[in-house]
Amino acid sequence: MRTFFDPRQHDHAPAVELHNGAYVPHAEHRGRMENVLATLQQIEAPADAGIEPIRRVHGDDYLAFLQTAHQRWVEAGRIGDAHGYAWPVVGRRPLKLNRIDADLGQFSFDASSPIAAGTWSSSYWGAQSAIAATQAVLDGERAAFALCRPPGHHCGADYLGGYCFLNNAAIAVEAAIAAGKRRVAILDVDYHHGNGTQDIFYERGDVLFVSVHADPVTDYPFFWGHADERGEGAGEGATLNLPLPRGTGLEAYRAALDTGLQAIGDFGADLLCVSFGADTFAGDPISQFALQTADYTPIARSIAQLDLPTAIVMEGGYAVDALGANVAAFLAGFE
Amino acid sequence: MRTFFDPRQHDHAPAVELHNGAYVPHAEHRGRMENVLATLQQIEAPADAGIEPIRRVHGDDYLAFLQTAHQRWVEAGRIGDAHGYAWPVVGRRPLKLNRIDADLGQFSFDASSPIAAGTWSSSYWGAQSAIAATQAVLDGERAAFALCRPPGHHCGADYLGGYCFLNNAAIAVEAAIAAGKRRVAILDVDYHHGNGTQDIFYERGDVLFVSVHADPVTDYPFFWGHADERGEGAGEGATLNLPLPRGTGLEAYRAALDTGLQAIGDFGADLLCVSFGADTFAGDPISQFALQTADYTPIARSIAQLDLPTAIVMEGGYAVDALGANVAAFLAGFE
Repeated sequence: MRTFFDPRQHDHAPAVELHNGAYVPHAEHRGRMENVLATLQQIEAPADAGIEPIRRVHGDDYLAFLQTAHQRWVEAGRIGDAHGYAWPVVGRRPLKLNRIDADLGQFSFDASSPIAAGTWSSSYWGAQSAIAATQAVLDGERAAFALCRPPGHHCGADYLGGYCFLNNAAIAVEAAIAAGKRRVAILDVDYHHGNGTQDIFYERGDVLFVSVHADPVTDYPFFWGHADERGEGAGEGATLNLPLPRGTGLEAYRAALDTGLQAIGDFGADLLCVSFGADTFAGDPISQFALQTADYTPIARSIAQLDLPTAIVMEGGYAVDALGANVAAFLAGFE
Repeated sequence: MRTFFDPRQHDHAPAVELHNGAYVPHAEHRGRMENVLATLQQIEAPADAGIEPIRRVHGDDYLAFLQTAHQRWVEAGRIGDAHGYAWPVVGRRPLKLNRIDADLGQFSFDASSPIAAGTWSSSYWGAQSAIAATQAVLDGERAAFALCRPPGHHCGADYLGGYCFLNNAAIAVEAAIAAGKRRVAILDVDYHHGNGTQDIFYERGDVLFVSVHADPVTDYPFFWGHADERGEGAGEGATLNLPLPRGTGLEAYRAALDTGLQAIGDFGADLLCVSFGADTFAGDPISQFALQTADYTPIARSIAQLDLPTAIVMEGGYAVDALGANVAAFLAGFE
């Protein structure tokens, strides 16, 4: 399978993150990609499609914030990497604030996604990888893989969070629509709910969002991904959340997945974008499902049976030593 | 002036807080009160008016969260004191979540207000001090002072933040209304905008909220306190925000204060509640106004000229060595 990755995606290198009340080493580190790259062959660097495909998803205020946040943090005399400590519980409005801490609160939903010196570069090239994989599918590939880092699905149109800064899946979908696709489905099979992707398309009837994930009653991102979130307006019914309890293994997982695949089949999509996280793996250090490496191939095969042109973008997966094997097992299901 | 304080207000003792990207010693510590207590005379312990006056402001879900959060944190095996790392940027709805981190995000707006073992006890007795001061005024005192700790004005009906857990000013106002007062004005003269108090009364026409504070474009709480926030519905026009730039000294401060006092006079209040923070002091370590100790007496005298029964509740002030002198100077303006 054609696979896209740019070495500049390694630039994003925060040292620590705030998690469960303490600073811990940043779980979303470059070693993840190195393990996958050692497993996969024929990696291609993406072409540079520029900023326009990214602007189809993210607003200029947010992009300007993202590009300047780390520098502003340094200029403010702060230590470490930029992360917020206060958020607008009242709801957000387009305030013109003039302090890095205020903008971090305005444009994020957690304190666990630090912006480091290389964050913009990595995010930009990760998005280019997603665009390149989508283009490969538009050009006739049955499926293509974007080895995105940082991941993207927790990031909304104008907020970051959950290690995510640009929403690679949403950028891929908008690229496909800009190229003429009329109806696109997204299947998110990361352990965590893809809240950013859901938000971006929540009122859209032309993009179906289906997610199989850990119940947000107990798992991040907590405030999204509940089964009663079904879309709004023109998007009503075009969001399908299938939360599962901690400890879920292959059988229960596949039952939920089949429900999601049925909905995608019924939707009549022209193209499928899969947000693939390998943090559903039993050995994942921050997640609680029980899938094994060998399970990823039949799961992917079920998805492939939809028989849709498929762009696959990498999301999470923090059992680093097994990540390459899990990714390879998943991609094998499309061969 | 009759002054109320309960020693159990010392129980709240978090070690550190997250501020500007790092853990620093908790600025809102018991030494603040000790400095004030050494300056004032005739401290009275408040009567215990029970939970009902607190429930007039805060919902049962929030109160249950507050009372159990630290224990849940300990049971989850976490270190330090309870504080969140993820917040619902989508807006909140009454989700039944089952993880302490999720509830911390649901019921707070910052990561800087840790809940320690003694937080509930201190907050409860601080609120009782506010109720007792209000009762003293209802009983005929011209003015009375509640030496509240923790402070209260950043805390909304169902969220904590900014070192605040129960909104002492709002509880005082509701106690006055329950006792028969028809129109109550709140004057908030802390350095920081009293976002929680504003939120609680934002749609109420019988409670006027006036705040003189640092411009939230540069200062916490960032997302509230802008001049265009004027109340909604029945409360439209009953919120008046008077933001001032960093560096403001007595002359400009008094000009804004006079505007606020004029509005309070026009409102025709039966009773006044003053949220007094001494962090407008030039020496405050986390604030940027330029008031001197001697300035607090004429400021208070201007407020006293409204000739309203006045309950004064303590909010912020972090120049600990000067806090007692600043409080005494302010209270002297009412003598």
